[in-house]
Amino acid sequence: MSKIESVDFFYLRMPEVQDISDNSQDVILARVSAGGEVGWGECDASPLTTIASFVAPMSHLSCHPIATPVLGRKLDEPADISAINREVRARSMDVLQHSHTLAGIDSALWDLLGRRRGEPVWSLLGYDQATAKTPYASQLFGDTPAETLEKGRARRDQGFRAAKFGWGPFGHGSVEVDADHLAAAREGLGEDGILLVDAGTVWVDDYEAAAARLPALQEARATWFEEPFVSAALEEYSRLSAAGGTVKTAGGEGAHNTYMAKHMIDYAGIGFIQIDAGRMGISDAKWVADYAQARGVTFVNHTFNSHLALSASMQPFAGRADDELCEYPVENKSVARAVTKNRIERAADGSVRAPEAPGLGIDIDPAAFERYLLDVEIRIDGVTLYGTPEIPTC
Amino acid sequence: MSKIESVDFFYLRMPEVQDISDNSQDVILARVSAGGEVGWGECDASPLTTIASFVAPMSHLSCHPIATPVLGRKLDEPADISAINREVRARSMDVLQHSHTLAGIDSALWDLLGRRRGEPVWSLLGYDQATAKTPYASQLFGDTPAETLEKGRARRDQGFRAAKFGWGPFGHGSVEVDADHLAAAREGLGEDGILLVDAGTVWVDDYEAAAARLPALQEARATWFEEPFVSAALEEYSRLSAAGGTVKTAGGEGAHNTYMAKHMIDYAGIGFIQIDAGRMGISDAKWVADYAQARGVTFVNHTFNSHLALSASMQPFAGRADDELCEYPVENKSVARAVTKNRIERAADGSVRAPEAPGLGIDIDPAAFERYLLDVEIRIDGVTLYGTPEIPTC
Repeated sequence: MSKIESVDFFYLRMPEVQDISDNSQDVILARVSAGGEVGWGECDASPLTTIASFVAPMSHLSCHPIATPVLGRKLDEPADISAINREVRARSMDVLQHSHTLAGIDSALWDLLGRRRGEPVWSLLGYDQATAKTPYASQLFGDTPAETLEKGRARRDQGFRAAKFGWGPFGHGSVEVDADHLAAAREGLGEDGILLVDAGTVWVDDYEAAAARLPALQEARATWFEEPFVSAALEEYSRLSAAGGTVKTAGGEGAHNTYMAKHMIDYAGIGFIQIDAGRMGISDAKWVADYAQARGVTFVNHTFNSHLALSASMQPFAGRADDELCEYPVENKSVARAVTKNRIERAADGSVRAPEAPGLGIDIDPAAFERYLLDVEIRIDGVTLYGTPEIPTC
Repeated sequence: MSKIESVDFFYLRMPEVQDISDNSQDVILARVSAGGEVGWGECDASPLTTIASFVAPMSHLSCHPIATPVLGRKLDEPADISAINREVRARSMDVLQHSHTLAGIDSALWDLLGRRRGEPVWSLLGYDQATAKTPYASQLFGDTPAETLEKGRARRDQGFRAAKFGWGPFGHGSVEVDADHLAAAREGLGEDGILLVDAGTVWVDDYEAAAARLPALQEARATWFEEPFVSAALEEYSRLSAAGGTVKTAGGEGAHNTYMAKHMIDYAGIGFIQIDAGRMGISDAKWVADYAQARGVTFVNHTFNSHLALSASMQPFAGRADDELCEYPVENKSVARAVTKNRIERAADGSVRAPEAPGLGIDIDPAAFERYLLDVEIRIDGVTLYGTPEIPTC
């Protein structure tokens, strides 16, 4: 029997972080050790807040530091990971940050167990094989329609069949300007490209503002209209889903537990559920993938970080041929690229698959990420609760 | 025009914190300064995680420290508080902890504005008067039915017309033992007492386990059955609400934004929505109180902390005569009692009202809480992001 001996967090950051919608400007990694093996995971989260939630002194029965239900726990089989998930969600329920912190730990637990067994995580999850996915290039809209056109052309030239445009100016100006961006994206991507559009919650819960963009989205033959609203605006999603016609709604990246994802499937009428294992964990994301299939909703990963995060987010639907699209970050900052020695590369036909190698199939590169590592210290009454750990040599 | 000059957090803690369901074992206070005035608020939250979320370096556009949309902002009128709420929820959306942190700040902003104008917060919220509420004594079940009986008697002897029993052994043993506790609570409280029961999310989302307790709850004439499930288990709540007969479901303390509360009202069929201003803020809690009224659901505060928190949680429904019950903590730890100089006392007829004094009507007692104050330091690359502030002299 092996037990979880340690969980270490590493906070990496670009020298300059810009006020833009690019989640790859910093990285928070979790390294778990158990029985002589290590596993790595990544949270898509506020790093300092995540670290604090792991070490924060207990407040009461349901407000434990995330460390309590993790350290010292048994880790021999997948059921042990389920038990840890349940415990964290019960005992740390009132630490709001817990889901993001758990997400990285959960990924690391799966990575560790897979490495120990010499199996990829998707195999531990019950899949026979990793099916081919169509990666879509995930990027921001250009500042102008002309820039958006150029970005679309660039992706097509790089061999991407699918591309997503999001954030940037979209939704901040007039309906007409947005329509120009959409037409430019379609033109750049070509007639047969799969065009995906991400509004980045810009309208919060304003149905009319979102619905006003539907004609241009239909005209540009967008496959999905992502995050017009915050994840919780179920009623507004539901109305827009019904009105969308050929354009399906997509959302769910804000979901950080199975319930939030389930509500979007049950009440919001979405066509695509987008789940980030770095915010929910692989365990819960797999539950969502199963539930989505049963309800006729397509599962897609959400990933804006390193290829460690990409692999984690691919595992829950790695073997499901019907869930064909895969978010594939193409504008990652150097800190996110420095995390891993290898990457999930596109094959000659342009497709990607979850790795065949054990665990998450991604090798971490401490020598490369060391230059981005921040020196963090948290002390209470003279006792150090957290200090940046030594860079591991393996 | 006045601007928010500073927000200071104070982390207070009992020398020993036990692994029990008592949220009053530590306290996190927020003090806001603007235009020469100060206001105080309290979060029901993990203190260290809350502090970290306020100072955490920006990760990207939607992952700002809570400080960004607060410090330096205009604070002249209630609309300014609304604007700050909107900004925090947009710019700090991906800091999961943000709602709890915002809750304390929002309360402090209302306190400050009320003090400056010489008006109670409930008046700023649009109420003409603070109506009388029936306080219910909020306490844990006894370890045995005999202890529960004694607790019920003690509350009746203290003049409480209403009492809530929660947590402790309830739901952890057999249906029969739970029935014994319920009968004992009813006996102790007397025939005409208002009996409220809190299951503390013990069954997570297990409908059958919760439904098995309904006969004993009906037999004991419980007014409500609170939190059989986690807040997100909307479908299970809905089934239990339909099956409850004379026993209404109650929940919502886990809601930390308006959407979560709205979902419980729209989809869970609850009869009582319980909102903690220390987890959501007074602003959003007021929205929920209005929405609940429109949907025929009774609003009740959730409070397990100091009388500063109690006042904050009473404001959103302070002037609503139909929402008559008020959670009133009676087993507070000394750290929570040390926070305030005055308390919200019961009148001769046993009722309580939100204070008439300006702001939240509660005076903070730094000289008394100083002995519980922890010395916290958070540093990144040698720069101190947070150090425990000096104890204020006023």
